[in-house]
Amino acid sequence: MRRKEFQVEQEEELIGFLGGMSFGFLGTSDEQGLPRVTPLNFVYMEGNFYFHGSRAGDKMKSIRRNQQVCFTVADEYALIPSYFSDPELACPATAYFKSVTAYGQAELVEDAAEKAAVFTLFMQKLQPEGGYAPIDAEDPKYPSRLKGVAVVRIVPEEITAKFKFGQNLKEEERTAVTQGLKDRNGARDAETIAMMEKYCPYHSNID
Amino acid sequence: MRRKEFQVEQEEELIGFLGGMSFGFLGTSDEQGLPRVTPLNFVYMEGNFYFHGSRAGDKMKSIRRNQQVCFTVADEYALIPSYFSDPELACPATAYFKSVTAYGQAELVEDAAEKAAVFTLFMQKLQPEGGYAPIDAEDPKYPSRLKGVAVVRIVPEEITAKFKFGQNLKEEERTAVTQGLKDRNGARDAETIAMMEKYCPYHSNID
Repeated sequence: MRRKEFQVEQEEELIGFLGGMSFGFLGTSDEQGLPRVTPLNFVYMEGNFYFHGSRAGDKMKSIRRNQQVCFTVADEYALIPSYFSDPELACPATAYFKSVTAYGQAELVEDAAEKAAVFTLFMQKLQPEGGYAPIDAEDPKYPSRLKGVAVVRIVPEEITAKFKFGQNLKEEERTAVTQGLKDRNGARDAETIAMMEKYCPYHSNID
Repeated sequence: MRRKEFQVEQEEELIGFLGGMSFGFLGTSDEQGLPRVTPLNFVYMEGNFYFHGSRAGDKMKSIRRNQQVCFTVADEYALIPSYFSDPELACPATAYFKSVTAYGQAELVEDAAEKAAVFTLFMQKLQPEGGYAPIDAEDPKYPSRLKGVAVVRIVPEEITAKFKFGQNLKEEERTAVTQGLKDRNGARDAETIAMMEKYCPYHSNID
């Protein structure tokens, strides 16, 4: 799965993946073209990515100079040792992962109600058990605090996703890797096998 | 800890952290200044970062156009809910993490022996249990394969590290967060408390 436009089912997978990942990596570029990569907690809301930070920080300076940014979220499911499919060569060693990359414009969010909605989603995502007063731009506790922090909206022009789970393997290699994962039985190996089956090009109902 | 030059002890911490992280995020910038962030398995060897990829891929094209890159590795230890230190406001909610960012020049490695050394380190890091023939540029099994894959060396001009474990907290907030982590007792909470103690500005011997 690596494309610019997503079908409904893919959009749902994207939302599920991004909802389960607490942080991603913002790429910015200064006026000399020097890239910078910053890890950030984020939320994905109505097709846009949001993060927050200090108004005076380096990220905000970078974004004021160049609004074009990149945001990447990745999760490594399993390291696949070479011996799962080759008893001798090291070459087949690899990793299975999901990654999503968005390219787009970064815009400062100034509207207090939108900021409150973004922080509400942050809290629902990262503190789902609750334990705080609802974030409301009208509540006298929050407005000065909302004003003091910068919230940035990334409006994607393009989103690409790469879910790598051995889709390029021949049938016998796939069987060998699946068996290897079953035998190893590591923390995420069963989940990895499920992903291999889901994205197997011979069985997939997604392409 | 956020500085350009590291002391020996910090260099050892850096090596320990990078050795335990299987992947990082490469930032490149194209001729229009558009950033791109790519997740990659990597090794850190003698002060340089290395990754590999397809000779014909987009990453290599980006690097040929602009050698100046950024490479960031980050690990989130714990989400810290607001109620650990404030019964009402959502504001103290945060995450504790380690991140390391290197800025430098990306160079293609052409020497077969250096490539073999890089892949040897990759295998030691990501497949420490062995199960493959040693990677040797002289071994007839490997040379054509080594030639077929691109290896890139990032020579850092600057490395910054941010280890965020509540260093800015007042003593009573720190006590509250530590107690909250103890009570929650999540998978990495004990480890997080150890990091808080290690990097506590009142007790640290690192500053």
